[in-house]
Amino acid sequence: MRYELYYWPTIQGRGEYVRLALEDAGADYADVARRGNGESKMMAMMDAAKETPPFAPPFLKVGKLVIGQTANILLYLGPRHGLAPKAEPQRLWVHQLQLTIADFVVEIHDTHHPLGPTLYYEDQRPAAKKRTSEFWGERVPKFLGYFERLIDGCGGPHLNGRRICYADLSLFQIVEGLRYAFPNNMKRFERNVPRVIELRDRVAARPNIKAYLASDRRIPFNEDGIFRHYRALDA
Amino acid sequence: MRYELYYWPTIQGRGEYVRLALEDAGADYADVARRGNGESKMMAMMDAAKETPPFAPPFLKVGKLVIGQTANILLYLGPRHGLAPKAEPQRLWVHQLQLTIADFVVEIHDTHHPLGPTLYYEDQRPAAKKRTSEFWGERVPKFLGYFERLIDGCGGPHLNGRRICYADLSLFQIVEGLRYAFPNNMKRFERNVPRVIELRDRVAARPNIKAYLASDRRIPFNEDGIFRHYRALDA
Repeated sequence: MRYELYYWPTIQGRGEYVRLALEDAGADYADVARRGNGESKMMAMMDAAKETPPFAPPFLKVGKLVIGQTANILLYLGPRHGLAPKAEPQRLWVHQLQLTIADFVVEIHDTHHPLGPTLYYEDQRPAAKKRTSEFWGERVPKFLGYFERLIDGCGGPHLNGRRICYADLSLFQIVEGLRYAFPNNMKRFERNVPRVIELRDRVAARPNIKAYLASDRRIPFNEDGIFRHYRALDA
Repeated sequence: MRYELYYWPTIQGRGEYVRLALEDAGADYADVARRGNGESKMMAMMDAAKETPPFAPPFLKVGKLVIGQTANILLYLGPRHGLAPKAEPQRLWVHQLQLTIADFVVEIHDTHHPLGPTLYYEDQRPAAKKRTSEFWGERVPKFLGYFERLIDGCGGPHLNGRRICYADLSLFQIVEGLRYAFPNNMKRFERNVPRVIELRDRVAARPNIKAYLASDRRIPFNEDGIFRHYRALDA
């Protein structure tokens, strides 16, 4: 089976959580919007009035099925590719972790866009600075501290014990992104979450992930995505 | 089976999407934190280092299973109570709708808390005003317009066609909340989404929902929840 992933072609963004799962699984997929007129094809699918149009990218096409919302796509892919347990209680648990990561992603995005997603960063610098200060003072410790305790509580080395799950891949991406966007803050903070960092290293060393990160399929971080490096926000 | 719902006892908040589903289903449940020492019991469950501690309320206890994240709880409850189809493609679709509603809920909350969830509204009034203006100018039309087109595209009267689903109950709550928080803005806007309003009326008329709304189990809207009425934000 060939998957078609639809996502903005120039950013990692929310699509990256799906890309990491597909890459780790060695799945056969096309990153549609990065080819030819793929981006217009993507926009046309969202404008469709009938059937089940997604609200926003990313979405995944599998045969006739179109699945939107990052966590929902991973819910579908996980048990099919050994990235989530098949039994319902554990499947819901891994999904719950992903939804908590998704909440964190929104807050990461809001550090540079506190006044709303349709304004430019340049038009909301002072607000961004305030929000970022609260982010590092309160929210990063709360979210990453939670994941640290989970790895500890389940005996590790992953969020859900011995076996990898897609939420581990997403947590890897969170660490990578925070390192890119806030190198100074992250450098100071990492000592508080050694198990999260160890998990990050473990994911980075997985052969398919390693190959992916070294390939041009991995779009570099930049200032259009979720994780943006603005020096003014990284004291 | 008896469900135990754990959520903050004095607000509707994110727990309300679960309460509406349990009430519509006529399910046997206890709203634990609203009784005796229920709130300390809830806090203790989140502090548990082992097993599967939720990041935040709401969470639902079903026997030994503890499910966190609003949309995840509804994913579990939906097909068991006739509030979502059992077949996977349609089950994922309804979940996708719920996740889109969850994204909207975050943006609604951010209108009064753009600089972060741990500061008071009183400390971020000017930023809240800016964010709210972007919210009504860009985001409400985008989100509610999307749901309007879905009801139209599927033939209605619900989001997923003839049969009710939990996302319909959540969309009802969105309309109720926007009417409470922004009566002036909402009054002007409603004419743009007649099908969404019709769906709201249809949900309100369901016997179990009607009885619930008239009962003291329904906590009134107030300025500690997601939907807050601040006159300065409702031009």
